[in-house]
Amino acid sequence: MSRFLICFLFLLLSSVSAAGRFLRLAKPDPSAAAATARWLSSQNSWGVLSTISSDLGGSPFGNVVSYSDGLPGDGRGIPYFYLTALDPTARDALRDERSSFTLSEFPLATCGDIDPENPTCSKLTLSGKLKLLEFNTTEGEFAKKALFTKHPEMEGWPKNHKFRIFKLNIEHIFLIDWFGGPKPISISEYLESATNRVSVF
Amino acid sequence: MSRFLICFLFLLLSSVSAAGRFLRLAKPDPSAAAATARWLSSQNSWGVLSTISSDLGGSPFGNVVSYSDGLPGDGRGIPYFYLTALDPTARDALRDERSSFTLSEFPLATCGDIDPENPTCSKLTLSGKLKLLEFNTTEGEFAKKALFTKHPEMEGWPKNHKFRIFKLNIEHIFLIDWFGGPKPISISEYLESATNRVSVF
Repeated sequence: MSRFLICFLFLLLSSVSAAGRFLRLAKPDPSAAAATARWLSSQNSWGVLSTISSDLGGSPFGNVVSYSDGLPGDGRGIPYFYLTALDPTARDALRDERSSFTLSEFPLATCGDIDPENPTCSKLTLSGKLKLLEFNTTEGEFAKKALFTKHPEMEGWPKNHKFRIFKLNIEHIFLIDWFGGPKPISISEYLESATNRVSVF
Repeated sequence: MSRFLICFLFLLLSSVSAAGRFLRLAKPDPSAAAATARWLSSQNSWGVLSTISSDLGGSPFGNVVSYSDGLPGDGRGIPYFYLTALDPTARDALRDERSSFTLSEFPLATCGDIDPENPTCSKLTLSGKLKLLEFNTTEGEFAKKALFTKHPEMEGWPKNHKFRIFKLNIEHIFLIDWFGGPKPISISEYLESATNRVSVF
């Protein structure tokens, strides 16, 4: 039996590693739309940030980015990013702040055999304005800690790339977590949704 | 020892399942940019499709979608989608075809402990025009088979949702697979890149 226990622990640790090094919270019931949206924000470690491309004449441009909405187990729902203007996404945002940030439940490995496009495998798109944050502010310090804790290697990224912190000011929330179309969630419902705060270290 | 073997096989099958039910090909060398881009297209099963949102006044809107670029082991590089106009992405594309499709290496579990935003964890954005395909054409039949083989449940999705096949006509390729910025890849280099065709069933 001890070998099975070792096997089980190995599987558990593999699962934790795949999600971004931190233990995961249980998925809320699909009827709890705001909680589900917050769960997706807090449990993922990366997503696709879409901007209006200045290089491509105003076409949409989605880019894979890491993010954090807070310390592990204490997500606040607002995604923060660590971007360099060497990359088109930051350059685009500095010209046109309109952007969206898209997350899927699929990489959290809780969709089972359900197809990633199936509405019960939840998906979240937060739309709004991508804003540059100053480092030496209360929110800038919070964001830096949130990012560097979930993405430890960021702290060592090249200084001459001039990475800056960006924040998505959310203006619209699109969540699909069940059949029947997107769930209506207001910004305040999303931001004020109770988070299941736990110690995960 | 047999218990360890069972454990190993279970882990192997878990890994295969996470990638979308099919065995994976080895990642090309980062110096082979077009092959790496094709590898990302053929090995992923879902990504984020970004359009110009008509609901949100022209803001970019990224949506999680499933796709296929061909039968398993025989990807052709062009992503096909199965979308309903009940969803904003298809509605947007029917008004403004400009779109981008974004894939990450991270869900393929080949990035190891590297952060999803690290340039060595490769990322691909295909930009172009999202076109509606007719079912009863040679390409429409190819696309349907490619989609339904990689995403078997699609065939049973509700008829009254009027799912249609869309194709991304690629006009620009953005690939990051190493340090030093995006790799220049032409459309023909991408489409003509040798694929490692193998039988994976």
